Amino acid sequence: MSAMPRGADSDRFARALLSCACEPGSASVGALVSDVGATRAIEQICQTSTSSRISTVDLTRVERAFEQADQVGARFVIPGDAEWPTQLDDLGDETPFGLWVLGASNLRLLALRSLALVGARAATQYGVRTASVLASDVAQRGWCVVSGGAYGIDAAAHRGALAVGASTIVVLASGVDHPYPATHAALFEQCRSSGLLISEAPPAEPARRWRFLARNRVIAALTRGTVVVEAAHRSGALNTARCAADLGREVFGVPGPISSTASAGVHALIRSGATLVSSADDVISAVKGDESDRQFDVADAISRLGVEASVTFQAVVAAGITSVADLANRLGVSQPDITADLAGLELAGLVERQTGGWAPTPPVSEHLQSHDTVQMLDFT
Amino acid sequence: MSAMPRGADSDRFARALLSCACEPGSASVGALVSDVGATRAIEQICQTSTSSRISTVDLTRVERAFEQADQVGARFVIPGDAEWPTQLDDLGDETPFGLWVLGASNLRLLALRSLALVGARAATQYGVRTASVLASDVAQRGWCVVSGGAYGIDAAAHRGALAVGASTIVVLASGVDHPYPATHAALFEQCRSSGLLISEAPPAEPARRWRFLARNRVIAALTRGTVVVEAAHRSGALNTARCAADLGREVFGVPGPISSTASAGVHALIRSGATLVSSADDVISAVKGDESDRQFDVADAISRLGVEASVTFQAVVAAGITSVADLANRLGVSQPDITADLAGLELAGLVERQTGGWAPTPPVSEHLQSHDTVQMLDFT
Repeated sequence: MSAMPRGADSDRFARALLSCACEPGSASVGALVSDVGATRAIEQICQTSTSSRISTVDLTRVERAFEQADQVGARFVIPGDAEWPTQLDDLGDETPFGLWVLGASNLRLLALRSLALVGARAATQYGVRTASVLASDVAQRGWCVVSGGAYGIDAAAHRGALAVGASTIVVLASGVDHPYPATHAALFEQCRSSGLLISEAPPAEPARRWRFLARNRVIAALTRGTVVVEAAHRSGALNTARCAADLGREVFGVPGPISSTASAGVHALIRSGATLVSSADDVISAVKGDESDRQFDVADAISRLGVEASVTFQAVVAAGITSVADLANRLGVSQPDITADLAGLELAGLVERQTGGWAPTPPVSEHLQSHDTVQMLDFT
Repeated sequence: MSAMPRGADSDRFARALLSCACEPGSASVGALVSDVGATRAIEQICQTSTSSRISTVDLTRVERAFEQADQVGARFVIPGDAEWPTQLDDLGDETPFGLWVLGASNLRLLALRSLALVGARAATQYGVRTASVLASDVAQRGWCVVSGGAYGIDAAAHRGALAVGASTIVVLASGVDHPYPATHAALFEQCRSSGLLISEAPPAEPARRWRFLARNRVIAALTRGTVVVEAAHRSGALNTARCAADLGREVFGVPGPISSTASAGVHALIRSGATLVSSADDVISAVKGDESDRQFDVADAISRLGVEASVTFQAVVAAGITSVADLANRLGVSQPDITADLAGLELAGLVERQTGGWAPTPPVSEHLQSHDTVQMLDFT
């Protein structure tokens, strides 16, 4: 199946065109899209300017983008899709037109319980070690680590989570088929195979310096909170923290020695109101506080599942307790696909690992006892 | 001259008796003293109980205390004395009955612009180094360092300030002639010769474990803010910080690596609201904020001077600019006494070192031009 949208899916094509033609986070275009939709927005932009911002070059570019996405197995996820992480809509007119996604996991499910771990490229040994340990610890508590792909803290965060077998999300400023920096190719391949690479930029797009700032807003919006591990004054990681604060997300800072310039920006951040954290527990108890405020709504979590994840979830509920191999057999789906679904369902709080295999979580079991199961699972 | 009060000075004798007979910080006795004065308080205590809390043993003890104070050159400073640091009155019923003071400096003047630097005995190399550097830096900016006499952070703070030629105040739980721990004898002698050793406990009193907590409230009340450099969970330094917060003083925490248990208590303190500081500038700008709120009132600062300091101040004003030797000659006072007065006057913001010697500060000069000098200096 090609990623290239056809016929009625003109919205997806229009949004892909915008992702090729516009800089990420263009609020003026975003406002127009909010008002009249992506297709009409493009028409209006073409009509209002003789030196049109969208040219036939872009039409060629977007077709090539879908071809390039096909070649690596990437997809273009847009608002309204089951896989769209609706928390990104908090960005308002700066909501991405869409996201190019590479990897088998479901973006929405993976990002449901996620935390950004960001920091300086010029990290110290202390920073790298700390980022890695924190990432391992939050991942083992069922939280998905989200970060960029840079040297230093970003890479250490992914490595820490991967080391305990967890999935991570790499948010790139370049195309998902050209993750930057190229020297992290092996790391990106690991991230892709167990989690996701995502980007606003279309495939083949190189990293451009100014796009890292725009990229940061996606990291901040996607996650429940942003943890800054090390950052000198004026570090880009502080920009991510500012975005997170503007969006009402939690902002955390990991302290370090006051003699370390790599911690100076974090200390300033804490002085300006970010929460000092010294462990994964500190972070999780803060974002869990948010969660318990909202109460865990099983029906709501189920209603947010994409089609494939819902089928897998239904199969787990039917079996009571089951293995990846059983599910793959029963549903005629590959084991890696089942594993990816289960990871998302686990992060969504719907299934959990037990000694005999995978089972519904206690809240789901309670919910099943008190509701009409058939109706609950009717997600059409 | 003996420190032993005679005749009309029954209040001083009564307060010394209470300092021998009562535990420091006894709020019930303190309340009685507030209501009826120290002399009547003792009478009432003796009348209301057959197993009197104040016995003839204490009468002998207080006489010996004054003799022991005489032997080492200590004095007993009480509320109402020119040398009494009135900020201690913020302790209400837990205000010390008096303080035994050893050293040539004026306690009130030295404590006017002072900061507590406290922390763990089991300090790391990072903590010791950090405490020492911070103490040097705040001392060089004209702030007096106040701490206990313990191993680790306390000692490092004194050493840092002494290293740049500054005076410090050691607040002891034992008598000023028996500073604890004895292995710090050389350090205490340095602190005494350039600054002060003070204690609520009478001379010859050994350190008692439970008195360190009571001692902490004096450190907190004496200073504009308390900086905790390193503290494990449940460290005594956190008790000092709590006292400071209760008194409305600033509380500061110096962060460290999250892997260090010696920083865990400080991190918890910052999470609970203390201000993260990573330099002397951070500390001073926070307490200076307080200061500028209050405006520097020259007349008020002058009115708070003790008799000796006032005479020295008057001599500096008369000379315009002068040296320690000149002042000593003119006033017939030893050079160390003049130096101690000048240190206090400098901390009070009234005099400053200039290339030709000591001179009034600019605010004092302005004040002199706009006021009747004779009336201003009439402090009787």
